[in-house]
Amino acid sequence: MTKAVQVCVVMGSKSDLPVMEHVTKTLKEFEVGYEVRVLSAHRTPDAVLELSRSAKERGIRVLIAGAGGAAHLAGVIASSTTLPVLGVPIGGGALSGMDALLSTVQMPGGVPVATLAIGNAGAKNAALLAVQILALSDEELAQRLTDFKQKQAEKIISESILDL
Amino acid sequence: MTKAVQVCVVMGSKSDLPVMEHVTKTLKEFEVGYEVRVLSAHRTPDAVLELSRSAKERGIRVLIAGAGGAAHLAGVIASSTTLPVLGVPIGGGALSGMDALLSTVQMPGGVPVATLAIGNAGAKNAALLAVQILALSDEELAQRLTDFKQKQAEKIISESILDL
Amino acid sequence: MTKAVQVCVVMGSKSDLPVMEHVTKTLKEFEVGYEVRVLSAHRTPDAVLELSRSAKERGIRVLIAGAGGAAHLAGVIASSTTLPVLGVPIGGGALSGMDALLSTVQMPGGVPVATLAIGNAGAKNAALLAVQILALSDEELAQRLTDFKQKQAEKIISESILDL
Amino acid sequence: MTKAVQVCVVMGSKSDLPVMEHVTKTLKEFEVGYEVRVLSAHRTPDAVLELSRSAKERGIRVLIAGAGGAAHLAGVIASSTTLPVLGVPIGGGALSGMDALLSTVQMPGGVPVATLAIGNAGAKNAALLAVQILALSDEELAQRLTDFKQKQAEKIISESILDL
Amino acid sequence: MTKAVQVCVVMGSKSDLPVMEHVTKTLKEFEVGYEVRVLSAHRTPDAVLELSRSAKERGIRVLIAGAGGAAHLAGVIASSTTLPVLGVPIGGGALSGMDALLSTVQMPGGVPVATLAIGNAGAKNAALLAVQILALSDEELAQRLTDFKQKQAEKIISESILDL
Amino acid sequence: MTKAVQVCVVMGSKSDLPVMEHVTKTLKEFEVGYEVRVLSAHRTPDAVLELSRSAKERGIRVLIAGAGGAAHLAGVIASSTTLPVLGVPIGGGALSGMDALLSTVQMPGGVPVATLAIGNAGAKNAALLAVQILALSDEELAQRLTDFKQKQAEKIISESILDL
Amino acid sequence: MTKAVQVCVVMGSKSDLPVMEHVTKTLKEFEVGYEVRVLSAHRTPDAVLELSRSAKERGIRVLIAGAGGAAHLAGVIASSTTLPVLGVPIGGGALSGMDALLSTVQMPGGVPVATLAIGNAGAKNAALLAVQILALSDEELAQRLTDFKQKQAEKIISESILDL
Amino acid sequence: MTKAVQVCVVMGSKSDLPVMEHVTKTLKEFEVGYEVRVLSAHRTPDAVLELSRSAKERGIRVLIAGAGGAAHLAGVIASSTTLPVLGVPIGGGALSGMDALLSTVQMPGGVPVATLAIGNAGAKNAALLAVQILALSDEELAQRLTDFKQKQAEKIISESILDL
Repeated sequence: MTKAVQVCVVMGSKSDLPVMEHVTKTLKEFEVGYEVRVLSAHRTPDAVLELSRSAKERGIRVLIAGAGGAAHLAGVIASSTTLPVLGVPIGGGALSGMDALLSTVQMPGGVPVATLAIGNAGAKNAALLAVQILALSDEELAQRLTDFKQKQAEKIISESILDL
Repeated sequence: MTKAVQVCVVMGSKSDLPVMEHVTKTLKEFEVGYEVRVLSAHRTPDAVLELSRSAKERGIRVLIAGAGGAAHLAGVIASSTTLPVLGVPIGGGALSGMDALLSTVQMPGGVPVATLAIGNAGAKNAALLAVQILALSDEELAQRLTDFKQKQAEKIISESILDL
Repeated sequence: MTKAVQVCVVMGSKSDLPVMEHVTKTLKEFEVGYEVRVLSAHRTPDAVLELSRSAKERGIRVLIAGAGGAAHLAGVIASSTTLPVLGVPIGGGALSGMDALLSTVQMPGGVPVATLAIGNAGAKNAALLAVQILALSDEELAQRLTDFKQKQAEKIISESILDL
Repeated sequence: MTKAVQVCVVMGSKSDLPVMEHVTKTLKEFEVGYEVRVLSAHRTPDAVLELSRSAKERGIRVLIAGAGGAAHLAGVIASSTTLPVLGVPIGGGALSGMDALLSTVQMPGGVPVATLAIGNAGAKNAALLAVQILALSDEELAQRLTDFKQKQAEKIISESILDL
Repeated sequence: MTKAVQVCVVMGSKSDLPVMEHVTKTLKEFEVGYEVRVLSAHRTPDAVLELSRSAKERGIRVLIAGAGGAAHLAGVIASSTTLPVLGVPIGGGALSGMDALLSTVQMPGGVPVATLAIGNAGAKNAALLAVQILALSDEELAQRLTDFKQKQAEKIISESILDL
Repeated sequence: MTKAVQVCVVMGSKSDLPVMEHVTKTLKEFEVGYEVRVLSAHRTPDAVLELSRSAKERGIRVLIAGAGGAAHLAGVIASSTTLPVLGVPIGGGALSGMDALLSTVQMPGGVPVATLAIGNAGAKNAALLAVQILALSDEELAQRLTDFKQKQAEKIISESILDL
Repeated sequence: MTKAVQVCVVMGSKSDLPVMEHVTKTLKEFEVGYEVRVLSAHRTPDAVLELSRSAKERGIRVLIAGAGGAAHLAGVIASSTTLPVLGVPIGGGALSGMDALLSTVQMPGGVPVATLAIGNAGAKNAALLAVQILALSDEELAQRLTDFKQKQAEKIISESILDL
Repeated sequence: MTKAVQVCVVMGSKSDLPVMEHVTKTLKEFEVGYEVRVLSAHRTPDAVLELSRSAKERGIRVLIAGAGGAAHLAGVIASSTTLPVLGVPIGGGALSGMDALLSTVQMPGGVPVATLAIGNAGAKNAALLAVQILALSDEELAQRLTDFKQKQAEKIISESILDL
């Protein structure tokens, strides 16, 4: 991909990939450049902080972090950058992602994490939110968003009448 | 306030004001122009959609919505704009905000709401997230964020040693 | 179906169909005319409001809405009609429908949604509740309800003794 | 009250009165005739069933039941009538009404209870839902509902702009 | 079975049988006479109350009720007898039995239901609790309980050392 | 008290007394002899087991245990007696008694604890359940129960009509 | 195994073995001597207390207990030893381990249980925590921990860049 | 305090002090040297990691971390030390500490946090667990623990008989 990398996508474990691919798939559709890292807030804290701290000067504008369980990844990233950090709680464990949701969203005042839904829907929406943010200063992207929203509605409308 | 209004702050009920004032207080500190509306997704759906739809052309760049209970406000706003929509779940009812959190965060794929923590911390962080987003194309604001983050850390560090 | 359409059944996504078919199946048994729409409160807000607003003059007397996750569909419909709106929370996601239940039932004072159980039982019961409502001014329907209730009891009674 | 009694309001305990008064206050505003009973599904099952069974022939068209804890009242009433039964979960106990909500809403297929929100909002909405149901065959009531909805919106709109 | 029937086992639906068979299997092991009924508090309220009311004079000494969802069965039975009523919450629905547990256990003061664990363990334990109750006036049964408890312990002790 | 002691009431901490007094008050009303102990499953395990083990030969017929948090008291008592053990979850902590409820009710197959509601209602009902059990072989007590149930119903019926 | 046994691993049921093998596997990797017992707090209370009480003099330094449901095992062990007791909540039942978590972690002041995550991760971490504790007075073990932590990080870093 | 500092007590915010004082009070009773820091995983990540990383060489043997909400403090500390890390979830927010509990306990395999109960009991127990760990290589401390446990039991036993 030769487009400038504007979004950094991080996940806490390779097992989060089936969910987090919804992030990259959506970014690709909007032709937004991105990079993907598998790093753990708990197992590789230095690498996470280094990634977070260097993000801005490397041209990153939005970070997206997906993690499950005691999902600290987005919060730790947010601790070391002033860029917007979007969090995707990953479900599937004993508590079905409720632990990941609360660990991601209940951040203390001063360090926001923009939290999306648990799982696939949240992953797709994290990408869309990143696109919405980038589109504030990118008219072409804004147009793509408007088109996406319209097509999404049209597709539903066209199939909205069921004969049961 | 003569600064251009870039953030639209909406709450579902006047009773949400003590929480949502943490949004406006923080935006003021960062000298970001904003407007405040009390509108209900359920009682004034047209006004909410009108607000949402007209936001972009009126110069709004980020919308922040706070609501409690079956908190549909942020979701309804997000349905009609391509601007980033940030959601603040308001607690205090029978279920302490768990209903507002789930109603705000569990959005379907295609329509993101960036959800923050329940209550005051979430309100402050919604404002900070808005500032982070605006700062992507505003160097002065970016500097203020960096200063804020540094001062926040310094204040904690300066008081970090307790002698109990 | 040549019977007058009195019930409008809406679902937020085609994936809700296996649950919502319990609505239509039951309405059919009671020979109540209905229409079915797949429309999303978040992706097609205008179409939802249009459906809701026009319902009364089109002869609709009861609306039934089924949705999962941050299930705003019933609430949004209720915002724009004075007809009774019945909500069916759809389960199956990460939180097994607890999010859909709270998003549907915890409506603010002023805008009721009559909420039924999560999933199939709720779908069947939404239809029965609609029939109960319509039966208030339709003696024939009232009789069918009485028969249904009696047969339901008789079937259980006839098989109530197990020899284990 | 000389208006015909169309709504039967039942609560499981006198301690539910502060919540359930929102039902009667709202019915009064809409000039709908009602009766009020304090009866317990567990302590006076016969009286509850008698009330339920006789409701229709006594001219009752809708029953509203409020109860807390293992809130069986609405379900037991629904077992013995084909009239619409609306359930109001009462909060305030150890589990803040989550027990009452689940006990009221999770009814099995075949016996619907139209469940409203926990507490005051749910009580008010139960009355409104009853009015919506009665208004299907009462044009004057329908007009009052339309007026109520419009005034409710106008009141919010008139105070919707805050200057903070 | 020619033993006197002392325990009445009721379940709300035939689908509860795989769980409730743990009741009858255990009662059989202790040679306690029992009867089994499938009756629904919501669909056959009269039959349930009749069963409950007549239990004592028919020689029943303990009632065991298993139900899922808004599990009112045990509570409704308890409303109409002074015999001990044991409740088994049945899991497996959208909320995994949490609804059944709360609907069974959170009874108001004055009408106890002795609640056991959700599912198979609870079913087995309901039978054991019934045996414990009956054994208070049946020395032979008391001895069987002592033997059961001792064998249960011995079996575990004999296999307690694992070599991994 | 010169009546034979038939019920042993145990609580995990003196702070449980305001709840557990509903047990002793009710037993007193039914003139059932009882003893009260404050013993902790975690701080005084030997004393708890000794109490449990010796209960039967000391003439105890039912044990009632109330505890909060990780409420192991009833379970530990049940481990060492074949008498019926009734558990009262005490609320009031961070999790409002949900921890005490689950710790008390979710016992494994083989060791039943008859669990009542969280807090005061559960305490009163534990006493009533003990009375129901004892009444199986005490006609006088059975009569008192019948009277209690009747008076309870009559009191409600006599005040059942509210004029609001 | 000829290494001195320093860790006693107990589980409440053989069915906990697939989870608890993550304890023994990890202890083996660190070459820490251990023993394994299957004992139930509810079915074999004496054996559990005997194990707990004798642990210190038998050279045990840390106890690890895994149990599901009303998981009293770790708490009962902690009641009778001054050695550190680590608790692993086992999931998989109706409530997915939430009951086991709360029963294990919500211990009263005075009797700590060091609680780990529900299921496999918790089992592995219980072993690691035991190793961390033993390593305080065992330099070789401390070195192995440092190596483990480093390798764990290196492995992640070496695979941290995904090309999607 | 001239005793060697062996325990490092960290809290995420000064508002956690009323809870965390139960840690220091207990350590003082056992005459264990400690230090206290107020540092936030999110606002001062570097200081937290520096504290964690330097702990061992500064003679610290156990770290205790208390935090509320998305409580990442213990996890972040555990990421950068091989010393035992004990976590105290602080309650009191919208979700009463359930968020803090899950954020602290649900750590991934490889990075244990020994989690105690929410609030005061957990704070006291964190100190006791630290003492238990240190006592493994300190006979005097071990004796104090034994004395503490005995006195705790004796105190309860001496007041265990209530005459109500």
